[in-house]
Amino acid sequence: MNGLYLAGNKLSYRTNLPQPQPGPDEALVRVTLAGICSTDLEIVKGYIPNFQGVLGHEFVGVVESAPAAAWRGRRVVATINAGCGKCDVCRSDGPEHCPDRTVLGIYNRDGVFAQYVAVPQVNLLPVPDEVPDEAAVFTEPLAAALRIREQVKVRPTSRVAVVGPGRLGMLIGQVLALAGTEVTMLGRREASLALPARLGLPTALVDSLPDNSFDFVVEATGNEAGFIHSLRLVRPLGVLVLKSTFAGRSQLDLTKLVVGEITVVGSRCGPFAPALRLLARQEVAVQPLIDGEYPLSEGLAAFARAAQPGTRKILLRP
Amino acid sequence: MNGLYLAGNKLSYRTNLPQPQPGPDEALVRVTLAGICSTDLEIVKGYIPNFQGVLGHEFVGVVESAPAAAWRGRRVVATINAGCGKCDVCRSDGPEHCPDRTVLGIYNRDGVFAQYVAVPQVNLLPVPDEVPDEAAVFTEPLAAALRIREQVKVRPTSRVAVVGPGRLGMLIGQVLALAGTEVTMLGRREASLALPARLGLPTALVDSLPDNSFDFVVEATGNEAGFIHSLRLVRPLGVLVLKSTFAGRSQLDLTKLVVGEITVVGSRCGPFAPALRLLARQEVAVQPLIDGEYPLSEGLAAFARAAQPGTRKILLRP
Repeated sequence: MNGLYLAGNKLSYRTNLPQPQPGPDEALVRVTLAGICSTDLEIVKGYIPNFQGVLGHEFVGVVESAPAAAWRGRRVVATINAGCGKCDVCRSDGPEHCPDRTVLGIYNRDGVFAQYVAVPQVNLLPVPDEVPDEAAVFTEPLAAALRIREQVKVRPTSRVAVVGPGRLGMLIGQVLALAGTEVTMLGRREASLALPARLGLPTALVDSLPDNSFDFVVEATGNEAGFIHSLRLVRPLGVLVLKSTFAGRSQLDLTKLVVGEITVVGSRCGPFAPALRLLARQEVAVQPLIDGEYPLSEGLAAFARAAQPGTRKILLRP
Repeated sequence: MNGLYLAGNKLSYRTNLPQPQPGPDEALVRVTLAGICSTDLEIVKGYIPNFQGVLGHEFVGVVESAPAAAWRGRRVVATINAGCGKCDVCRSDGPEHCPDRTVLGIYNRDGVFAQYVAVPQVNLLPVPDEVPDEAAVFTEPLAAALRIREQVKVRPTSRVAVVGPGRLGMLIGQVLALAGTEVTMLGRREASLALPARLGLPTALVDSLPDNSFDFVVEATGNEAGFIHSLRLVRPLGVLVLKSTFAGRSQLDLTKLVVGEITVVGSRCGPFAPALRLLARQEVAVQPLIDGEYPLSEGLAAFARAAQPGTRKILLRP
């Protein structure tokens, strides 16, 4: 099998990978399209030091085999966390925080930048016919954007900002604007603001706005400067959502957090079913975020492209 | 007037301070007892670089003069934030976050480590007769502890820990335990756990417990090691309350915050009326926290004592 394999922080395209052997509760899915996420780039940079295997977790595919016959041949997406299913955490909170979880292409489980992937059957969701692969491949990051709405009340009257109008930030901005909220997309460079403006979102340069300008700020840059701006821009009693992970420690002044009684919410994986509904209803624009598509065999070039500042979604086609 | 005056990060006892001249909406209060708080110690260390004036914000006193005759001669406490009363923040959130606020003994307003203090009449609350001065002087920090319950839901079934069983932590622990919650007090040294144990709270050494042991952790140490332990001890999807400010930047790994979807809540000043009700009902033990009382003239010795590790409340009597 062909795939992008990470070992010792070195990513390589391999043509001799063994085809995944699905376990008794797992389906084998043929990957038809996959997307590169900032987390993939961080993993290659060493964010998760010990991951070794096929990278990738954003995908759409077709079921080749599954315990339940009804899944075979269906076009699917799949949630990325596989829990033990037995512990208190799995029972009360789901698999996302199971201490023994594996995570597709991130933690102890081979991912989707390959011809095939094995996933627990319970993780599968069928893709509605009206959602093309080029939209369905955004289900996972769109669900991650929706996670914010699972965690925190987003008022229609809140002044909301998303710092980082990138591949994930653009989904977050659209999701937070859905119920009439004004969401301003903030970037470091004028060029990064063209797409959000074209999609109808207000924009501004992140350093052009005074302190405490927003009730609700989402940090989606994945860098320390973005975090510092986000904390600067959120008003006292406001909410700051941290949506991106980044390698390394940060040198932070937490005084404002306490004196301003800021609430900081870490946010990770989200619900797939409402993401698929949004895609089916075309209520969130995803295809304008696609900046390129590469065959899997050119995966290393795709990664180099995805790592360039300003690049949004790069797709891989096995 | 006698008082403890801070100028250029140097605290001195002065006997020639002018008596405060209350403004048209202000009362003049004769201070009968005051308490030293960790914030006072941080201010002397330079936490608020430009504060100059009489230090102190925890006190009880007797009204000497006030715009409304009914206040004269009454035993009172006073909230410490004075807002402009006109801005949107004051109108919607109260004076605590007014950008033009002054804060008693902390920011642009003389404090209570003196014979007299001027406070806005609107900040006054009468002290019930059954609350002695030695308890009433705890109203401000007890209100700060109660603030957590204004901000976050504390479940009776939550596993709660307070890191730092000090002068504020001991109030927080008792307040969070009030509705049947089990609250464990965590300290670095066995000696610090004696009082919480005597007051009936479970205790443990902070480094003796495994990661993710608690649903809800309050950081009340005011040091970076305490923050790192708190983040370590809170479980994924848990809540971490930051209750103490400290000078300087912190070198923090925020990965757990995002991956574990932790909620961090900064918490500062709280409501006085319920604090006075708790004191009147004797539902929170405060007098066991008193480690010493000094005349105001020995204020510098009192500060030195309050700064010693393990010291809880030190009182000043003008």
